[in-house]
Amino acid sequence: MRPFKGTISLDEARAIIERAIAPVTRVERVPLDRASGRVLAEPITSGADVPPFARAAMDGYAVRAQDTIGASRTTPRMLRRIEKAFTGQMPVHTVGAGNCIEIATGAPMPAGADAVVIVEDTDSDGDIVHVFAPVNAAQNIGRQGSDIQKGQTVLQPGTMLNASRVGSVAALGLTAVTVFEKPRVAILSTGNEIVEPGQPLAPGQIYDINRFTLTAVVNENGGLATPYRIAADTIEDLSRSVDECLEQDVLVFSGGSSVGERDLILDVITAKGEMLFHGIAVKPGKPTAFGRINDRLVFGMPGYPSSCLSNAHILLGPALRRIARLPHEIIRSLTLPLASRVTSVPGRHQFYTVRVENGLAVPAFKASGDITSMSKADGYIEIPAAVEAVDANELVEVKLF
Amino acid sequence: MRPFKGTISLDEARAIIERAIAPVTRVERVPLDRASGRVLAEPITSGADVPPFARAAMDGYAVRAQDTIGASRTTPRMLRRIEKAFTGQMPVHTVGAGNCIEIATGAPMPAGADAVVIVEDTDSDGDIVHVFAPVNAAQNIGRQGSDIQKGQTVLQPGTMLNASRVGSVAALGLTAVTVFEKPRVAILSTGNEIVEPGQPLAPGQIYDINRFTLTAVVNENGGLATPYRIAADTIEDLSRSVDECLEQDVLVFSGGSSVGERDLILDVITAKGEMLFHGIAVKPGKPTAFGRINDRLVFGMPGYPSSCLSNAHILLGPALRRIARLPHEIIRSLTLPLASRVTSVPGRHQFYTVRVENGLAVPAFKASGDITSMSKADGYIEIPAAVEAVDANELVEVKLF
Repeated sequence: MRPFKGTISLDEARAIIERAIAPVTRVERVPLDRASGRVLAEPITSGADVPPFARAAMDGYAVRAQDTIGASRTTPRMLRRIEKAFTGQMPVHTVGAGNCIEIATGAPMPAGADAVVIVEDTDSDGDIVHVFAPVNAAQNIGRQGSDIQKGQTVLQPGTMLNASRVGSVAALGLTAVTVFEKPRVAILSTGNEIVEPGQPLAPGQIYDINRFTLTAVVNENGGLATPYRIAADTIEDLSRSVDECLEQDVLVFSGGSSVGERDLILDVITAKGEMLFHGIAVKPGKPTAFGRINDRLVFGMPGYPSSCLSNAHILLGPALRRIARLPHEIIRSLTLPLASRVTSVPGRHQFYTVRVENGLAVPAFKASGDITSMSKADGYIEIPAAVEAVDANELVEVKLF
Repeated sequence: MRPFKGTISLDEARAIIERAIAPVTRVERVPLDRASGRVLAEPITSGADVPPFARAAMDGYAVRAQDTIGASRTTPRMLRRIEKAFTGQMPVHTVGAGNCIEIATGAPMPAGADAVVIVEDTDSDGDIVHVFAPVNAAQNIGRQGSDIQKGQTVLQPGTMLNASRVGSVAALGLTAVTVFEKPRVAILSTGNEIVEPGQPLAPGQIYDINRFTLTAVVNENGGLATPYRIAADTIEDLSRSVDECLEQDVLVFSGGSSVGERDLILDVITAKGEMLFHGIAVKPGKPTAFGRINDRLVFGMPGYPSSCLSNAHILLGPALRRIARLPHEIIRSLTLPLASRVTSVPGRHQFYTVRVENGLAVPAFKASGDITSMSKADGYIEIPAAVEAVDANELVEVKLF
């Protein structure tokens, strides 16, 4: 057996990954109604003013503001309605002195009018409109180009699209946008004991869990996961599997990175490329490895399911977001008192799963192989390498899954 | 023109929606690698122990704990290695007194052994293994069923699946799960001025924005949005469009719910079903309406794009999550000083968009028709109906989009 040559700190591991990352440069065209969540690869520049005409911002009457000076409930101004202006069509008449045009929100302003009196400040008697309040010029009007001006760059490349940004592209009449492709990620489970769900288990075998948890984390963080067949613990099969996986941008394998004699995949990676680290001072998840083969990044995750998933949340997810050009995820967190004391191994940064119950953070950690310790947890707390214990009732920051 | 009969408070509107909601009951089967984010509709019960055998939790040597009593660096215990046990196969031999079996993490424990000495606490000389530290019985072992016991219900119906929960289903060897269907949502834009992006604009016309923003909000909140064709402002066309949309569970229309004379869609809805409210004391978004036709819910959103989107975030998204049986979204928020004073209309609950810049919440609101006021914002602050202004440097809670 080969022991770890030594572990590096979590911060060092993050720095090594950061230096090795290259954001995706391939782009693709996507229809606008599937563009939310994607990262724009082109500037979006407006070919026209939005709105393309001055419009009423309220329901009421288009007027000449000067005709309303001094209007009040007791001294209403009387105006003659000469037309009703609806949305979707241009008014026919020009508003002259003493006239007004009834207008709906969003309808184009008629020529001659420079303000809208809201309907609530009026009363009408046939075509005679009583105006109870004065308006200033431009009041209750959306002027042409007030939202977006012709030639204006509305969105810059690198912007992540969301509901409102997709809306501002739609405002320009565009039906598709050019976005960066999602990084493609190969998921490779290794180990003679690992069996595809749906197949029977022979003695000593267990089902593949990591393929499913890694797929979920990759897809949640802007990647496109493709699971590959489970590789057997032979140099030949691992080498063939790794070659297959290199058709993707990133290879994430699990298992085979502890110090057992059968840790053949690290030899395979080293033969084809280079390992940049192996072993991090975190618990769980110490045997995490990272390297590259040409321009393909390789993440080696622990085989134990909750260690694998924990490090996928901590290292793989953020790295993929950088490759996908997504903003850092804003971690949702709660500050709560810890329900009971937990201890930590000195010198190792520890991730401790907790449930949120009755306003307390309740430790949920069982053992690093147990997937249920994570599926019953709501999130995790971190205990830095220098801290040996956190007492009951101490406030902790629960980072939610 | 018909003025609002009166507005109700945001809380009242939420309560009316809450009473009208029925969570989806239809279910579907989905493959496990597409199940993350979905809501389980069946209990997941284990047909076997996980792990199905006791296994080594560390790399090292399977021993009889009693053989290691008193072991130390200076007084090592000597054991004879009789086999190497790998993952995926059962060890052949039984560990007797003075014997040990080299074992890899995850490999089945051999008969006779009751603990694992970690490799770091040993040295070997051919088949003679020097043990430098004692172990207790069960130390460094994952016992059979320690993660999940046969017959145990691992996940309850109603649980939202995430990476770890999908992993705990995979641990049982299952390849698919029964989940609740996503609520199906028809998106209907109305108004003679509204034109499908990609088409030319005639004078007085603007592009459809709400279809795209509403689609994004629906899909982000667990729904399945289907946009329908834009309906013209005639009773006949609106009636036909509403009938088409009723093949979905929920109808969300935008436009035509202000007080303009052409607010025909409300008449159409009322003729087919009932309106439960029309008009909320919020800004922007006052002309929001809600009703139902048989068991189909109908959300009527303002036509102005940012008012429409704002109320979609506030009312539609949370309602859809309830229908989809998803947990309340934990709003991601930041508490920051406000960069400059903002005022609010007394008596109306106001949503005010802000950018986050240099640790300050900078007001980003332009006008309720402007989609760019939202696409340049990072989130919003809420100003309750009773508050008339918030001063610069006051701390505000920014709810992030």
